Amino acid sequence: MSLSMKDKIIQRFLLARGEPISGQQLADELGISRTAIWKHLQTLQDEGYEFITIKKKGYRLVSVPDRVDAARISSYLNTKRFGHTIHYFEEVDSTQSIAQQLARDGAKDGTIVIAEEQTGGKGRMQRPWYSAKGKGIWMTVIIRPNILPHQAPQLTLVAAVSLVSAMKTLYKNFIPEIKWPNDILINGKKCAGILTEMLAEMDRVDGLLIGIGINANHELDDFPEDIQSIATSIAIEEKQKVDRAQLVAEILKYLEHYTDEYVANGFAAIKRLWVEHSCTIGKRIKATTIRETVEGEAIGITDEGVLEILLDDGQIKKVYSADIEIQN
Amino acid sequence: MSLSMKDKIIQRFLLARGEPISGQQLADELGISRTAIWKHLQTLQDEGYEFITIKKKGYRLVSVPDRVDAARISSYLNTKRFGHTIHYFEEVDSTQSIAQQLARDGAKDGTIVIAEEQTGGKGRMQRPWYSAKGKGIWMTVIIRPNILPHQAPQLTLVAAVSLVSAMKTLYKNFIPEIKWPNDILINGKKCAGILTEMLAEMDRVDGLLIGIGINANHELDDFPEDIQSIATSIAIEEKQKVDRAQLVAEILKYLEHYTDEYVANGFAAIKRLWVEHSCTIGKRIKATTIRETVEGEAIGITDEGVLEILLDDGQIKKVYSADIEIQN
Repeated sequence: MSLSMKDKIIQRFLLARGEPISGQQLADELGISRTAIWKHLQTLQDEGYEFITIKKKGYRLVSVPDRVDAARISSYLNTKRFGHTIHYFEEVDSTQSIAQQLARDGAKDGTIVIAEEQTGGKGRMQRPWYSAKGKGIWMTVIIRPNILPHQAPQLTLVAAVSLVSAMKTLYKNFIPEIKWPNDILINGKKCAGILTEMLAEMDRVDGLLIGIGINANHELDDFPEDIQSIATSIAIEEKQKVDRAQLVAEILKYLEHYTDEYVANGFAAIKRLWVEHSCTIGKRIKATTIRETVEGEAIGITDEGVLEILLDDGQIKKVYSADIEIQN
Repeated sequence: MSLSMKDKIIQRFLLARGEPISGQQLADELGISRTAIWKHLQTLQDEGYEFITIKKKGYRLVSVPDRVDAARISSYLNTKRFGHTIHYFEEVDSTQSIAQQLARDGAKDGTIVIAEEQTGGKGRMQRPWYSAKGKGIWMTVIIRPNILPHQAPQLTLVAAVSLVSAMKTLYKNFIPEIKWPNDILINGKKCAGILTEMLAEMDRVDGLLIGIGINANHELDDFPEDIQSIATSIAIEEKQKVDRAQLVAEILKYLEHYTDEYVANGFAAIKRLWVEHSCTIGKRIKATTIRETVEGEAIGITDEGVLEILLDDGQIKKVYSADIEIQN
């Protein structure tokens, strides 16, 4: 992991969890002068970190800005590779398009791009994705598993299972569910979405861009009016503000774990977890594709991530891409 | 099609096929002054075009530089969409990486990137591809068919069929053959290769980059020594220099035709043509994959472009990616 000196200082304070650290100790640990330490602390104060000086003990960090920067994420991180390179931005067009460029330029497996705000965020089918400033997690994880292009949809399911697992670990007041193909719902309302894009040759995946958008600290009126009845946030459902950096680190932990599990042992275990957390399978649904609308019971997904619907006439219909409405 | 004034002038001369055109006529047709025409002709002479002045008749184009620029390709072009936007370069790292950027920025279906020389050309599996200056066709065609990601390998086969069809139309002294997955051979030696890359969401292809490398006017000692025994060029086999711009236009014609045919009527007809021109199917082969080497008879390809090999023990092995050696 490569952090700047400033990031190292703040990480040291974050790991101290509120205990004071003396300037001399910091200077010794990091191999720079006390004056340099003092200058970095000034810069950090300008960025919104607050310190108080405790006589004979040193500096104590009392308040951190609500950001998802490298220092804050790293202070929670417990992974072998994922999140070891973090590209953080105040504002971007979309994390996905920056990640595409980085992937082409050879970014390592597990590199992430994260921003406080996206001005041109996109969901599936190029639909706009609303990404309010400082409220959510707008992130792309670049992964480079050794798989074939036709296996790539399985990684969207890996990502969904990882998101749900991270949420269940951290929050206790709700149960997140997966809606095929790539939404996370809480109490029937959309809380997160996953957009997986792929750079591939015909017989080789060069890179997958797992785009993750999560409504974290939105209050209801942070959403545009027309989606207030169908959108929600973790904070609304948990009835408490979310530490976004902690959630990012938890997602990265599960995403790395389940990706490695998938590459080592195949799709079966992931598929079982996905079905377990799905709110689609076993339900009567209406699926609207580009060509038609079909109704029936969602009975399963194939190894290609394709939804299987049992129609009323007994036929099984395979659906690659659709908008789903759950009817019971 | 958008050509510069200079390109329009040269295209006019190319279409005149050696007949003289008066300065006044050109000025009238293009709506600019005779002085402006004269200045453009000066620039064109600097670029290697040669004109002679014929008394009372005007200018006659007597020699064109050996280039594959927009004007030269356009003068042969007979397509509805493909090649209507041409990005021409003297030298690039690789046409594929420029095309990736253009595709992300919304380049139209059929846009091409072509260069006289590639300094970092790549074949399959990131292998270097030798792209000598001014000798070959180093081109990427951006296509945006409405297909699902798992259908994408079929477009590599569409491209192979298009290349072979264009060569058979223009040249009479050899028969090109397709070697699975993406090589064009003449008399058993490699003459061209296709590298298809894809930008895709899980349920939608955003764009395909059909990279085409053709050894056109190479003489044997234009190839590095270590590949002289396995490489060839059209000029070597046809025993005559190739008009590269004409070949580009012919490839674009077939590529547009077969892509449209494929999208309208499916893969069956393309597959039949591919098998017809294949030098792999029906042969005993040795296939080396990342994991193993298998031997047997290549009996067919699936709709996913996967090669099926009948092993000696009667099993049928499916091969997604391999190097193939033909043994009889």
